[in-house]
Amino acid sequence: MKMSLDCVTCFVRQSLDAARLVTHDLAAQERIVRDVMRWLSEHGLEHSPPVLAQLVHRKLREISQVGDPYAAVKARHNAMALDLLPELRAQIAAAADPLAMATRLAIAGNVIDMGMKSMVEEDDVRASIRHALTEPFVGEWEYYRAASAAAKSILYLADNAGEIAFDRLLIEQLGPERVTVVVRGAPVLNDATLVDAHAVGLPDITTVIDNGSDAPGTLLTECSPELQHQFAAADMVIAKGQGNFESLSGRGHDVFFLFKVKCPVIATHVGLPMGTQILRQYRQAPIA
Amino acid sequence: MKMSLDCVTCFVRQSLDAARLVTHDLAAQERIVRDVMRWLSEHGLEHSPPVLAQLVHRKLREISQVGDPYAAVKARHNAMALDLLPELRAQIAAAADPLAMATRLAIAGNVIDMGMKSMVEEDDVRASIRHALTEPFVGEWEYYRAASAAAKSILYLADNAGEIAFDRLLIEQLGPERVTVVVRGAPVLNDATLVDAHAVGLPDITTVIDNGSDAPGTLLTECSPELQHQFAAADMVIAKGQGNFESLSGRGHDVFFLFKVKCPVIATHVGLPMGTQILRQYRQAPIA
Repeated sequence: MKMSLDCVTCFVRQSLDAARLVTHDLAAQERIVRDVMRWLSEHGLEHSPPVLAQLVHRKLREISQVGDPYAAVKARHNAMALDLLPELRAQIAAAADPLAMATRLAIAGNVIDMGMKSMVEEDDVRASIRHALTEPFVGEWEYYRAASAAAKSILYLADNAGEIAFDRLLIEQLGPERVTVVVRGAPVLNDATLVDAHAVGLPDITTVIDNGSDAPGTLLTECSPELQHQFAAADMVIAKGQGNFESLSGRGHDVFFLFKVKCPVIATHVGLPMGTQILRQYRQAPIA
Repeated sequence: MKMSLDCVTCFVRQSLDAARLVTHDLAAQERIVRDVMRWLSEHGLEHSPPVLAQLVHRKLREISQVGDPYAAVKARHNAMALDLLPELRAQIAAAADPLAMATRLAIAGNVIDMGMKSMVEEDDVRASIRHALTEPFVGEWEYYRAASAAAKSILYLADNAGEIAFDRLLIEQLGPERVTVVVRGAPVLNDATLVDAHAVGLPDITTVIDNGSDAPGTLLTECSPELQHQFAAADMVIAKGQGNFESLSGRGHDVFFLFKVKCPVIATHVGLPMGTQILRQYRQAPIA
């Protein structure tokens, strides 16, 4: 998926968010935002959003000299999500269709995305849960249900910290023994890494690997050989979030994308309104 | 009022909006956004938001070689607002307190602000009207009522095109014979100029002058001598919108500011939530 000029405004906002996370010094914040703008004004914008975001956030980490600007935010989001788990797990246990309920909750967790918003609080997450439980999904439920019933191996590409606790609920329903969870290979935005997988206890119940890349998406060609092998070999691939969608959709892969439409660029690209909850494959490129 | 780094993200978004208004050529749009970002990365950010916005929009007009990127948008907003006037005028005629009703409608029109949003449609305006008729104001109603009853001369600093049709309703209630309406001296953003004052028929009922400046606010020292004289001599000054607030508040002037809080920077500055409708004087600087 090609990026839009709208993505640039988002990158400038992300650079300000990150600047504020790493320093309280206004002059230093200004320097970071200026440097990112200068860099953006000089670099090609012909990449997909995750590729440019990867470069922007590398630049941000270089300028700020902070290896993981979002570390504290991610820890807070993991803790917040973990606090919700007992209540959500009870909801799944009481549901007529536990897999559907866990899938809905997993998509609800996709609201924890610092690429889209400068702050995500518990109120936002609770609103997202209500939305996920009541609003329809656009997608291929029965196909997803059948594929997940038949699959011997499921590769689950996680998206963000905090959200990964919600993913745990779905993985518990899918059957952790056949699932491999993939996280990013290094910090970028608030995307989940091994640190976050450990924070929500995923390695205790399933296999977790990192993809070897610091892109906020899955750029297969730069992922580790192990990830590439597993991606090709898995009976089923589930990819959470916009970043994985932006990097993997329209390339002929049999991937179930599970995400909320959270920005106008994606909304235009898939031809669906903001807020839409999507569970479907996009082997060929959508509209744009 | 000092600007925030948040204003920078807004300027980048405005540059994209303006780029899309002046050309459909994606490469040209990209060039405009790049050039504005480079310019922003190299210039001092220590000004008030209207001063920097003035410079950014001069740069935008220079790069795009279009003297008034928002001309078509402004014409559309004027026409949209004029269409609403008969209905709104009837509402004022039927109101127990016509001045209060006209003031509420004037603040409702302040939603037509392309500095804040990339698009404003009739639905937004109707929602803003409903909000203005039902939500409380923060302010000094009785002082405003007394001042407007006593004033022999009222200087009314207009804000945006479209909105200026709503201002006409309030000016009709204030008594057009003692009002002088001030518009911007040259195009900037979707701010009202003499063209817009004529479009809504203001010169037929009252005196309209331009302030001699292309800032999206009122930077007194660079306004025309006539404006400066009238500002000093008027019994009462009413200033619409955030731009006039940003440039005139906290400087010891007796100005009634009438605006909606539409951005987090202003919300923090005045210590009131987004969406708040304000009618009050800020002789001294608010919180920030």
